[in-house]
Amino acid sequence: MKLNCDLGESYGNWSIGNDEAVMPFIDQANIACGFHAGDPMVMTKTIQLAKQHNVEVGAHPSYPDLNGFGRRSMQCSRDELISLVRYQVAAIDGVAKSLDVELSYVKPHGALYNDMMKSDSVRESLMDAVSGYHRPLKLMLQATPLYEIHKEEAEKAGVSLLFEAFADRCYTDEGLLVKRGEKGAVHSSQLMLEQAQLLATEKQVITQTGKRISVAADSLCVHGDNQESIDSVKQIKHILANI
Amino acid sequence: MKLNCDLGESYGNWSIGNDEAVMPFIDQANIACGFHAGDPMVMTKTIQLAKQHNVEVGAHPSYPDLNGFGRRSMQCSRDELISLVRYQVAAIDGVAKSLDVELSYVKPHGALYNDMMKSDSVRESLMDAVSGYHRPLKLMLQATPLYEIHKEEAEKAGVSLLFEAFADRCYTDEGLLVKRGEKGAVHSSQLMLEQAQLLATEKQVITQTGKRISVAADSLCVHGDNQESIDSVKQIKHILANI
Amino acid sequence: MKLNCDLGESYGNWSIGNDEAVMPFIDQANIACGFHAGDPMVMTKTIQLAKQHNVEVGAHPSYPDLNGFGRRSMQCSRDELISLVRYQVAAIDGVAKSLDVELSYVKPHGALYNDMMKSDSVRESLMDAVSGYHRPLKLMLQATPLYEIHKEEAEKAGVSLLFEAFADRCYTDEGLLVKRGEKGAVHSSQLMLEQAQLLATEKQVITQTGKRISVAADSLCVHGDNQESIDSVKQIKHILANI
Amino acid sequence: MKLNCDLGESYGNWSIGNDEAVMPFIDQANIACGFHAGDPMVMTKTIQLAKQHNVEVGAHPSYPDLNGFGRRSMQCSRDELISLVRYQVAAIDGVAKSLDVELSYVKPHGALYNDMMKSDSVRESLMDAVSGYHRPLKLMLQATPLYEIHKEEAEKAGVSLLFEAFADRCYTDEGLLVKRGEKGAVHSSQLMLEQAQLLATEKQVITQTGKRISVAADSLCVHGDNQESIDSVKQIKHILANI
Repeated sequence: MKLNCDLGESYGNWSIGNDEAVMPFIDQANIACGFHAGDPMVMTKTIQLAKQHNVEVGAHPSYPDLNGFGRRSMQCSRDELISLVRYQVAAIDGVAKSLDVELSYVKPHGALYNDMMKSDSVRESLMDAVSGYHRPLKLMLQATPLYEIHKEEAEKAGVSLLFEAFADRCYTDEGLLVKRGEKGAVHSSQLMLEQAQLLATEKQVITQTGKRISVAADSLCVHGDNQESIDSVKQIKHILANI
Repeated sequence: MKLNCDLGESYGNWSIGNDEAVMPFIDQANIACGFHAGDPMVMTKTIQLAKQHNVEVGAHPSYPDLNGFGRRSMQCSRDELISLVRYQVAAIDGVAKSLDVELSYVKPHGALYNDMMKSDSVRESLMDAVSGYHRPLKLMLQATPLYEIHKEEAEKAGVSLLFEAFADRCYTDEGLLVKRGEKGAVHSSQLMLEQAQLLATEKQVITQTGKRISVAADSLCVHGDNQESIDSVKQIKHILANI
Repeated sequence: MKLNCDLGESYGNWSIGNDEAVMPFIDQANIACGFHAGDPMVMTKTIQLAKQHNVEVGAHPSYPDLNGFGRRSMQCSRDELISLVRYQVAAIDGVAKSLDVELSYVKPHGALYNDMMKSDSVRESLMDAVSGYHRPLKLMLQATPLYEIHKEEAEKAGVSLLFEAFADRCYTDEGLLVKRGEKGAVHSSQLMLEQAQLLATEKQVITQTGKRISVAADSLCVHGDNQESIDSVKQIKHILANI
Repeated sequence: MKLNCDLGESYGNWSIGNDEAVMPFIDQANIACGFHAGDPMVMTKTIQLAKQHNVEVGAHPSYPDLNGFGRRSMQCSRDELISLVRYQVAAIDGVAKSLDVELSYVKPHGALYNDMMKSDSVRESLMDAVSGYHRPLKLMLQATPLYEIHKEEAEKAGVSLLFEAFADRCYTDEGLLVKRGEKGAVHSSQLMLEQAQLLATEKQVITQTGKRISVAADSLCVHGDNQESIDSVKQIKHILANI
């Protein structure tokens, strides 16, 4: 079970995140591509940091919305989606390769990620954007009860998938995330560690009603926004290393 | 002698240039990369158009200045220059490759081009940006009396150069362009055609004082902004084809 | 019955529309405020042009989406909507006043306009944005069968409304526009002129089934994108002047 | 002697500065207008914060360079300078007025400030931008030995000036700042407080060679970037309050 984290989300004079603190403990860095965050300098430095810690590099493309940090859905045609994802993926791919780093996957950011999970046509466009890229890259999705369907779609599109789960979020019996704001949506530190362990060892979670269900994830999404989340990453890393 | 032209400079809802009219008559398309003009959709369509007409594709990177169309110099550090050029080159390289088109050169745009010709440190940064890219690309410069020095710099940096000349501009005895605004700076249609022919056959121009000097250019820069300039491109193409 | 038109939508090096050709024939210029189009120079020149032709000036604020020309809906909180509309309105208000021109109304652009017509909460936010502006400005909406409700909402919010209708679009029996793409959605030139006349004289239109219904509009929305639309504006102006 | 500080320089999801910590101790807030930093929401909140602490509000307009934080000079024509400054000033003026706050001055930001101090034509354009604004606003400049000349220029242009000095920077005998990087360019905390006191009581500073010279400043520029600078602001405020 790998750990993935959104990084390289600073921009110009503005810093965000604690990339240097969290990079040593993760396996996959989802690096911003300039549309919601990141700029050529930030991207370059983040790839160098990932390289230094042997962390896999993924593209983290977004809708073009710097002021909204890519968190607002923007209706795009299929052609627009394909071209804006390819542009961002290509940018980081070539920058990374020039630093002797091989980009290996694509994880859409924010609203684009949410739209991918909710909309068949957005997901199809993103799969085609990645599968039609000039060399094979994986596409990262959330592991949901639809993951078999998503796998079939991906096979048809000719793209390989990575599935991710969340250690800090409570799951419903249906295998979806309990919505933020609902009671018990976000786990305590202790529950989070238990969920990480269960996901890593059994590919299961215990839902809000106490059932065990399968969540077939390849990677856990972690955060490095503040000291607390960085401490959690370290603890999860420690647990995974000792399984 | 090839013909190169700046293309793909539309943006979103705004169209500029006559890409479809001029593409059939040129050999090299300098395609905007999104920083002064162009966006992922425009870039994609322009590459497709170039492919259709067997036109070589070059990156046309710029300072990040959409409102100023990349025509304002912006002081950047060496690292900033390298990363912003690499980002743009990588973006178009990967988009092109996904369309089965091979990017072959880089021609800086507007103020970045002017700064490259005027400033040793900017030129060095651009050469390093291109030479350190993960695969070989050529860098296009203006053919000036300093071209031997530029070649040496390029050899040292490990990058190959392309030199371009201008058919419609009068040259000084020193091999520089007579400044716009000065008398006779821009040639009449007839003089332009004669200069194109002389450049193509003898790699020479007749200067404002009537001397013949060498201008060792690989490519002629032409424009497609309006009907008159497109007509000129056709005439130049006709002349070059009949040499 | 006044004529209003979207103007000042050029940006930097990109020109769009035929502002100089259409300005002499309209009464109200909806001027872009820099978020979907327009920049400080374009805005300044467009206000000067409006002044020269004694045309009323309105703010034409948008979601922040230059690449999408403000045509993509972007989810904003009430506070975000209020602040982004106020910022744009304030910018053009102060620029206009410095040119001795008094801004008199606000017409939201593109997706923001559509969202205003469809969503009660967006409309309420926009009404509050305008009513809480430091001096009274009118808000322009589409005249629909809900116009009495909209008037009540506006009275409650403390803002005055302007209603606009469309001469070139066929109306349903319910007083809405027949959707683009449906048969007969866009009128021929002759029908457009007849509809303009009926709107101006009777505040009525003949619907797609041949019924007469009321459309209580203060202003007709016209376009200046191409020669055909400019010719239409002139013809409509001629008709209105001779009523 | 007032204290002024650059504030409202966050943007979207990115926070910078400690506006809430520093606002209680300053007299004048230079608030970003969206071109180098700030956005409508940030601007609105910063004005509200200033209002709460009875702090005077100034516009802090910039070249249009978000990625470079307005720190790169960009060549603009006189008309461009006037329109981009007016747009930004107007935006904050109208937003402030709608919050019952009266904008009172303009302090250009970053490279625009530096260009104003160095270039007669930029300074003239900025004076005209402010003097031609539809209501009187003051323009803030650095107090230098040229301040009498600047006052004459301003009188001619019809604009009132505010002069600012720096407590933390060592002055040359010529009344300019010792350049950053040079020895002794930035004062220790103790020297800074002494310089603040001398500026406030005598309008003088002790130069790097130990001479006393006049620096006729109305306001001291302070910073709120980190805890150390905030502590300094508090100490300076304390000194000024006890003079």
